[in-house]
Amino acid sequence: MLTIKRLDLEDARSLLKGAREKATEIGVPMCIAITDESGNLVAFERMDGGKVTSITIAIDKSYTASGAKKATHEYGEASQPGAPAYGIGSAIGGRLMVVGGGLPVIVDGEVVGGIGVSSGTPAQDREVAQAGLDAFQSAQG
Amino acid sequence: MLTIKRLDLEDARSLLKGAREKATEIGVPMCIAITDESGNLVAFERMDGGKVTSITIAIDKSYTASGAKKATHEYGEASQPGAPAYGIGSAIGGRLMVVGGGLPVIVDGEVVGGIGVSSGTPAQDREVAQAGLDAFQSAQG
Amino acid sequence: MLTIKRLDLEDARSLLKGAREKATEIGVPMCIAITDESGNLVAFERMDGGKVTSITIAIDKSYTASGAKKATHEYGEASQPGAPAYGIGSAIGGRLMVVGGGLPVIVDGEVVGGIGVSSGTPAQDREVAQAGLDAFQSAQG
Amino acid sequence: MLTIKRLDLEDARSLLKGAREKATEIGVPMCIAITDESGNLVAFERMDGGKVTSITIAIDKSYTASGAKKATHEYGEASQPGAPAYGIGSAIGGRLMVVGGGLPVIVDGEVVGGIGVSSGTPAQDREVAQAGLDAFQSAQG
Repeated sequence: MLTIKRLDLEDARSLLKGAREKATEIGVPMCIAITDESGNLVAFERMDGGKVTSITIAIDKSYTASGAKKATHEYGEASQPGAPAYGIGSAIGGRLMVVGGGLPVIVDGEVVGGIGVSSGTPAQDREVAQAGLDAFQSAQG
Repeated sequence: MLTIKRLDLEDARSLLKGAREKATEIGVPMCIAITDESGNLVAFERMDGGKVTSITIAIDKSYTASGAKKATHEYGEASQPGAPAYGIGSAIGGRLMVVGGGLPVIVDGEVVGGIGVSSGTPAQDREVAQAGLDAFQSAQG
Repeated sequence: MLTIKRLDLEDARSLLKGAREKATEIGVPMCIAITDESGNLVAFERMDGGKVTSITIAIDKSYTASGAKKATHEYGEASQPGAPAYGIGSAIGGRLMVVGGGLPVIVDGEVVGGIGVSSGTPAQDREVAQAGLDAFQSAQG
Repeated sequence: MLTIKRLDLEDARSLLKGAREKATEIGVPMCIAITDESGNLVAFERMDGGKVTSITIAIDKSYTASGAKKATHEYGEASQPGAPAYGIGSAIGGRLMVVGGGLPVIVDGEVVGGIGVSSGTPAQDREVAQAGLDAFQSAQG
């Protein structure tokens, strides 16, 4: 029998809040998604002005990061032409995201969930996702 | 050119909060989704214990209610065997929901969004969605 | 080798126009789709106020009527519980529509396309689709 | 509450007309799609001879341009191997188009919709989409 460590809704809100504040700071309204360690959605917000196309992209970045236990930008590197994971980006009906902005949420070395951000450049998305993680870590004390 | 009225993220949060409080009150952890008037997701929360299968169901109930400008339970009645809309429930890849728990959000006679709730019985889902609407209306003053 | 008779864009426009005028007359803004005899979209219009959920439904009603050479309301009857085509409404990923409002376009006994209408009641959708056919027949002289 | 500006069906027709005339001029029958600012289809025409595969491509180019507020050819550049958005083209079930021919429709600095064109080379598609925008801007006068 397994015992799974999984973020709860309160954790998800703290991730969302940290990301949202950074997005506001850099002036880019974002779609922000939080998934649990099984890749299933826990919380989502589209800030006013966030892109419609980014709804699914944010959810899928978070799904990828939590489900594959890897940052989406790492897949970006590993899936370049000639690299070992070339072509992985169209897997799972296109849900496996290889663009930066999806990060696993790790506690005591275990992936407990993921955060996915979309609407800015991949660098901005990644910065905002990282701010979510930072806020969560601070809240964890 | 058209001018459209659409709920914003703050409105979505007030809908979520009203629904969540009712869900807590009746002791059923729910998935709660808020969409805008075009059916696109604005906010989502899965309360701890909410069903994994209800993630998509809540989102699609809200999509249906906002996009079709009709409560999902009305489709339930209209799509019974022998009724005029029989079979509509499998339309749009199954996204058109005919089970209660999806309600349009109406301001001054215009649909500005939707709320969709899932994890309880359809009657509970509908009660919780209605509580979201009530909280929103109160906040509107 | 086959020679296929297929409606052209001008025909599609005359179908659209007839349907649109009836929709305006009865005061229900509609989504109206025209497909060719292979089920592929030729023309589409969402009147101002037409439902977002009806975009796909109108297209799929037309797809069904032209592809299956049968009015969608006929499938509605044939797919009732206990009837021979029970369950057909979820076929093709839900594209096979059994709700009224899809009609084949027939010229000299051959199906050359289809029209699909959605946003009203199934009876209204069907009335508006029929008006499209009537206008087309008149234009054919 | 937000107030949104959205193109109406008459605007969509003027975009379609401008694009169609250019397509006729260059001798390439096109699929032309117009979406609103939320990415939902408003109008579509497949000119006689337009490609069947281009139906969805034109719709998705328009969806991408309006929903992401960006020309699809810009995504083409940003998603080259080694570039930051590499892999984005398979997102949203492949709906996010990175091939030229999708342009946002902008009025007073706001995206009010999109136009997507397909059946020619990407350069032809883009030229025809731009002609749609030009006709629309003239009509706005």
